[in-house]
Amino acid sequence: MVELLSIILAAGEGTRMQSALPKVLHPVGGLPMVGHVMRTALKSGATDICVVVGPNHEAVQAEVSRHRSGTRFFSQLDRLGTGHAVRQAREAYEAAEGHVVVLYADNPLVSSRTVDAITSRLDAGADIVVVGYRPEDPTNLGRLLTEGGRLLAIREHRDATEEERKIGLANSGIIGFRADALRGIIDRIDNKNAKGEYYLTDAVELANADGRRVEFIEADAGEVMGVDDRSRLAAAEAQFQSLRRDDFMKAGVTLRDPQSVWFSWDTEVARDVTIFPNVVFGPGVKIASNVEIRAFCDIEDVVIGEGASIGPFARIRGGADIGPNVHLGNFVEVKKSRIGAGTKAGHLTYLGDAEIGEKTNIGAGTITCNYDGVNKDKTVIGDNVFIGSNASLVAPVTIGDGAYTASGSVITKDVPVDALALGRARQENKAGYAPKLREKALAKKAAKGK
Amino acid sequence: MVELLSIILAAGEGTRMQSALPKVLHPVGGLPMVGHVMRTALKSGATDICVVVGPNHEAVQAEVSRHRSGTRFFSQLDRLGTGHAVRQAREAYEAAEGHVVVLYADNPLVSSRTVDAITSRLDAGADIVVVGYRPEDPTNLGRLLTEGGRLLAIREHRDATEEERKIGLANSGIIGFRADALRGIIDRIDNKNAKGEYYLTDAVELANADGRRVEFIEADAGEVMGVDDRSRLAAAEAQFQSLRRDDFMKAGVTLRDPQSVWFSWDTEVARDVTIFPNVVFGPGVKIASNVEIRAFCDIEDVVIGEGASIGPFARIRGGADIGPNVHLGNFVEVKKSRIGAGTKAGHLTYLGDAEIGEKTNIGAGTITCNYDGVNKDKTVIGDNVFIGSNASLVAPVTIGDGAYTASGSVITKDVPVDALALGRARQENKAGYAPKLREKALAKKAAKGK
Amino acid sequence: MVELLSIILAAGEGTRMQSALPKVLHPVGGLPMVGHVMRTALKSGATDICVVVGPNHEAVQAEVSRHRSGTRFFSQLDRLGTGHAVRQAREAYEAAEGHVVVLYADNPLVSSRTVDAITSRLDAGADIVVVGYRPEDPTNLGRLLTEGGRLLAIREHRDATEEERKIGLANSGIIGFRADALRGIIDRIDNKNAKGEYYLTDAVELANADGRRVEFIEADAGEVMGVDDRSRLAAAEAQFQSLRRDDFMKAGVTLRDPQSVWFSWDTEVARDVTIFPNVVFGPGVKIASNVEIRAFCDIEDVVIGEGASIGPFARIRGGADIGPNVHLGNFVEVKKSRIGAGTKAGHLTYLGDAEIGEKTNIGAGTITCNYDGVNKDKTVIGDNVFIGSNASLVAPVTIGDGAYTASGSVITKDVPVDALALGRARQENKAGYAPKLREKALAKKAAKGK
Repeated sequence: MVELLSIILAAGEGTRMQSALPKVLHPVGGLPMVGHVMRTALKSGATDICVVVGPNHEAVQAEVSRHRSGTRFFSQLDRLGTGHAVRQAREAYEAAEGHVVVLYADNPLVSSRTVDAITSRLDAGADIVVVGYRPEDPTNLGRLLTEGGRLLAIREHRDATEEERKIGLANSGIIGFRADALRGIIDRIDNKNAKGEYYLTDAVELANADGRRVEFIEADAGEVMGVDDRSRLAAAEAQFQSLRRDDFMKAGVTLRDPQSVWFSWDTEVARDVTIFPNVVFGPGVKIASNVEIRAFCDIEDVVIGEGASIGPFARIRGGADIGPNVHLGNFVEVKKSRIGAGTKAGHLTYLGDAEIGEKTNIGAGTITCNYDGVNKDKTVIGDNVFIGSNASLVAPVTIGDGAYTASGSVITKDVPVDALALGRARQENKAGYAPKLREKALAKKAAKGK
Repeated sequence: MVELLSIILAAGEGTRMQSALPKVLHPVGGLPMVGHVMRTALKSGATDICVVVGPNHEAVQAEVSRHRSGTRFFSQLDRLGTGHAVRQAREAYEAAEGHVVVLYADNPLVSSRTVDAITSRLDAGADIVVVGYRPEDPTNLGRLLTEGGRLLAIREHRDATEEERKIGLANSGIIGFRADALRGIIDRIDNKNAKGEYYLTDAVELANADGRRVEFIEADAGEVMGVDDRSRLAAAEAQFQSLRRDDFMKAGVTLRDPQSVWFSWDTEVARDVTIFPNVVFGPGVKIASNVEIRAFCDIEDVVIGEGASIGPFARIRGGADIGPNVHLGNFVEVKKSRIGAGTKAGHLTYLGDAEIGEKTNIGAGTITCNYDGVNKDKTVIGDNVFIGSNASLVAPVTIGDGAYTASGSVITKDVPVDALALGRARQENKAGYAPKLREKALAKKAAKGK
Repeated sequence: MVELLSIILAAGEGTRMQSALPKVLHPVGGLPMVGHVMRTALKSGATDICVVVGPNHEAVQAEVSRHRSGTRFFSQLDRLGTGHAVRQAREAYEAAEGHVVVLYADNPLVSSRTVDAITSRLDAGADIVVVGYRPEDPTNLGRLLTEGGRLLAIREHRDATEEERKIGLANSGIIGFRADALRGIIDRIDNKNAKGEYYLTDAVELANADGRRVEFIEADAGEVMGVDDRSRLAAAEAQFQSLRRDDFMKAGVTLRDPQSVWFSWDTEVARDVTIFPNVVFGPGVKIASNVEIRAFCDIEDVVIGEGASIGPFARIRGGADIGPNVHLGNFVEVKKSRIGAGTKAGHLTYLGDAEIGEKTNIGAGTITCNYDGVNKDKTVIGDNVFIGSNASLVAPVTIGDGAYTASGSVITKDVPVDALALGRARQENKAGYAPKLREKALAKKAAKGK
């Protein structure tokens, strides 16, 4: 296999984002933009990846390294254009023997399919391959002047003739080089232009002048969209979501209102899952078939087994493992808990750091008291247990198989198998006392009013 | 009145749905698609209805029979086209004296207005009436070749001339016959085509050749849309919702963001109801005037009285009856309960299998403990009762008019009229003990760290 | 400065709203429409404002007076057209020396920028300035016949030639006059037309005939849209939301799905706030920078400090003050409470009428029992307090700094600084008793079945 070096440009300031967070760390589908581009580079078989970052972008480096440890970073201290940015990675491309593809960390949706198309052309003899696309409105964008499969020039809008401005094919900036072509051209790019910057796209003209083979491919406009402000970020998110929704529907998932279901980059959903309106998936979710997820759920970092029924108004997170045919109902939160097959927790419940067996019933209003102000302790509940409503289960505590806890109990000690646990006061009725309380309350109000 | 036989074709496999559920049982607006078509057939005055089903479609038959018991079913074991499907219903149309209309169980939004338009034409002397529509893009669809009110032919896309391909009017498949015309034609439809199937639309050509009167009508494209995958299912749902939203707004309902309110097929909402964004109505909901439904509610199978205020974050279900001027607030679930006029349950409450009187106040965090692991028991609460916060009401239990229960009580016995019930432990303060607990917790943490 | 009189027409019946509420009180962005127009009039520097109202519109007067006390009202008892409506305000414009601008209380989105543009033209010598706009479909609307900057006539659709019907510029109805021009024309408007009404737009023709200078300006179609039924109300709401979303994104707020975030007219959100899908802001919200608001929140009348983390599924309201770095988690309601920096309330909690210090932990399921059926009392909690899970805090009650309350406790008395408070029963286990309970429950079920 030919070597493939991906140079990811991630040094842009992103002033228009109006943010203290580096632009390329703003997330799309729950993953920072630069993470998407790293994944694309890896998926397209990059044998080497280097990232050009701006000053003080340690957080960018940390995100990049999560995807591939050992990724090399190059600093671009002055922002003098894309050509200048690529030059910072000289150490990487000077040694490269195969192809070099330049990607942008603020083009989060570029696909490995597009990178593959670039490398196929380079394999077939092209020296440079530029990725074009057809935006709705190409005004102000550089146009690709082509002839057959060849790219003759990239014409900036201000320099274009009336005829050239009618060209719909614009320059995405994404570009691939044979490594030797890049080396032969990059240092000849100058900054004799209005902004005094070095434009990587000038390579096209230089290469054509050298008699090199310059080609182009077309990518989908949605795929190569760049993000430079929060509106474009929202547009990239919308595009990402639209693609995921279509994928899932094709695979046999029912989305009653696709527009109101939000996936993360890594969400997995099996066939015959039904998702009601208004469901948000954070990262780390895998859902087996025949699961029903009702409206208003917020689900993150969890595996959900076949036939489970979730929501409405459920929140699951923190590495939970929900077994088959489990029912989690409304106003129920499950955090970092394992719940066995067929167990039900239907109403107003918090299960944190719990291990719960099979066919157990968790009454309405149950709270695992898992935190003592410092430690998070475990609540262990067996199979076929009945936890009465409004229970407080004070961790660490273990409740044996088949046990039963009375409604409204505070459970502080372990409950043996098949035992009944009570932890509540006896009820006392004071006849005729309620009207006195009302009088007292009214008197208090009157006193306040004075 | 002339007899009207509706033949509903429901045998399609629906492979592209990628589902174990028969296609025509996938719901739109909370009702299986075949149910919508049954309702349309009934509403248009069908005197006889028969449904052609595929093998192993018992569940389809069950759904159909919910709408009209005694509906006849015919089995189509091999799927050899629409003409073949209709022939399976021979027993039904052989005896028919009036009109026959063929509908499709995967065209869920067809209206009785359209069926009425067909039968009017048949009444006026047409032998066949075909329903056309104007899709956004008619490519690949059969086009209606018309002259005046007459339909000359249905031209398949592949057989169409350039000129014919410019015709925007496409064949929906929905078709009406005078019963004698159907009988005279149906057996002459052959399968001499690429797929070897019997196409019902071939009836048009045969009828014209016989000198019969073949007409067409136009229906709205949204109405005759067919569903063959989950994307189209979502599109049908969107179309259904759009129609319902418009209807309700015309009738004086405020939808602050119409796109984010989802109705069911049978939802009823009166004038001057205000619905905030993000409300989901399951089947069986009737709402009286001047009700306010705030954001994030999930409401199903309930009657809500005038002036009630619901949500945000309320969930009601299971045959509930909510009286006038009731307030149900956030994180409140009401299941199969009757709640009297002016009663309030504002916060974090579960009311299941309860009967509650008028002007009663249900404190925050109240839980009806209605389940003992086997039985669901009743909680009965009178008028003008004050249920203190965080109460557990252990059913079966009755709380008399004017009674008062202390906050945090577990109520296991009946409370007489005007009595005060307490069921909680006395508070004890241990001075200076909190820092010791913190030290203990920190020591525990340190021990774990080792 | 030249005097500016704003005449706001608010007498329309609004029959098509199908509502008992006067049309101009229906809200957009949480503010009645007439309130928006009052704000625009004030913002554009009106020195005098008068409002023409219909009979029995006391509620309209109340809303208007909230924005500017001393606003004069004129009654239009018969609804005989806009010219007739303006004449009711004779007392106001007879004394006016500068400009008069006529606005409509059912055009809620008109901006002060547009009013400023009118007054600039009047300052520069125009006698009348009409506001035109370009609707998507101008059919049936009056068209502006213009020449240079002059407005020659307003041509009603039915009177327009084919050529005139091609004009895209329609009459919004919004119009400005030099006061003397208005006085010179208004009484000469007659009602010799099909409906027998007095049309203010007839002023254009009269003024031109007098040789006065009649000009026009163009406003955005979204801005001058009128509301006459609930669909148009929803459209105005959508337009309002779209503008606010764009403003916030430009200012550095991340909206993961802009379409599913709803702002009020007065919402303030600082830079680097991230808002997940499905968040509803009622009136009175100010949010500092670096706040994260997760999905499914309903937030109203609250100030939220820097770095706070809210939701998912949080509801805040009633004049709350949430300090910096506070965390409010799922199924948490905060009403009229002050919460100190760094305090956390993560799960299933109701905090009402509470004052809570810094770095305090509120356990899951905590309920402030703030209501005795008549009075709302205060719960005061200090700094560094640990409230154990499922606590009931019965107000009025004070819990000192550093105190600790045991899980499941009912706290009815004050807790001193650093004390531990317990208010719960001891747990008792009854060995082997659970199977007996189950037998009993099954027997009960069997008995019912008989």
